[in-house]
Amino acid sequence: MSKVKLGVKNCLYPLPTTLVGANVDGRPNYIAIAHVGVMALKHISLSMNKRHYTNAGIVENGTFSVNLPSVEMVEKADYCGLVSGKDVDKAALFETFYGVLGTAPMIAECPISMECRVVKTVDMTTHDVFIGEIVEAYCDEACLDDDVVDFARVRPILFVMNDRSYWQIGERFARAWQAGKALKG
Amino acid sequence: MSKVKLGVKNCLYPLPTTLVGANVDGRPNYIAIAHVGVMALKHISLSMNKRHYTNAGIVENGTFSVNLPSVEMVEKADYCGLVSGKDVDKAALFETFYGVLGTAPMIAECPISMECRVVKTVDMTTHDVFIGEIVEAYCDEACLDDDVVDFARVRPILFVMNDRSYWQIGERFARAWQAGKALKG
Repeated sequence: MSKVKLGVKNCLYPLPTTLVGANVDGRPNYIAIAHVGVMALKHISLSMNKRHYTNAGIVENGTFSVNLPSVEMVEKADYCGLVSGKDVDKAALFETFYGVLGTAPMIAECPISMECRVVKTVDMTTHDVFIGEIVEAYCDEACLDDDVVDFARVRPILFVMNDRSYWQIGERFARAWQAGKALKG
Repeated sequence: MSKVKLGVKNCLYPLPTTLVGANVDGRPNYIAIAHVGVMALKHISLSMNKRHYTNAGIVENGTFSVNLPSVEMVEKADYCGLVSGKDVDKAALFETFYGVLGTAPMIAECPISMECRVVKTVDMTTHDVFIGEIVEAYCDEACLDDDVVDFARVRPILFVMNDRSYWQIGERFARAWQAGKALKG
């Protein structure tokens, strides 16, 4: 196979598009973030450019939420990455609810929401990476199959930076920690 | 919409399944890792349980690779998460190549490979999180569209922990930083 060198190009995609919720100046705000990750079983990371309005709210409260919008919400989700909470009340787009932390606003329309407590911050020069420990997760009842989240029903918005695009999830085609067993011989 | 509390449940999925390459005891080794993330534009994270054989090799060399297997490789990719390089020579499954770093083995059969230099390590108690700066990315020529990676051709393996499943990527349905412009009014 013929390989092409792309230079210093990030190709770790697709990643789930999230709407991150935080109280900023005492009011709920939401921002679209897809540079996320899993740091440990119960810990997730958000890479947030230091220029964003939201960062100060996360630092002040030590809490945030991660909401997964579904494909039907793509206009609103993308909009939350286009405008700043400094200029626009983005919370007006959604119904907000709070959970046990009390300061991490969540979006009722999103099929999945997780409220998190900040446990570490990693300074990546241009970006603050907030590492949150999940305190409680909320899921629409209609997206559960036998109490387990069914991502075919969640219909998350997947993000690819390379061509600046959003994708749907496709077919579930194999089982993890099972598909490779045949090779164990 | 009726919400169900799931407790402390990570729902930040799907994430791309990767095969992480490292030289361990001077020999190439590959492990399946899907708890990954983007930390900054050119930086990616790998969450690696401290019990894994690979971690010492990443620490020793200060380098690793991230390879994206395609759906056709699901058996081999899953197998690389089932067995340890301590017991099995997993590099025998693939054709290995090296890039500019010289110590980050990459998999020729994977449509995308990135070689990385470790710039930070975050201790998450049970897991080492290695943060790598991408030094060079390699892509199969057949997966490029006008020099941009086309993930429909890459056909990555998406991982969901909740039901321990692998998914295909679906349809590209909207453009990022575009879809929400209509709401700007």
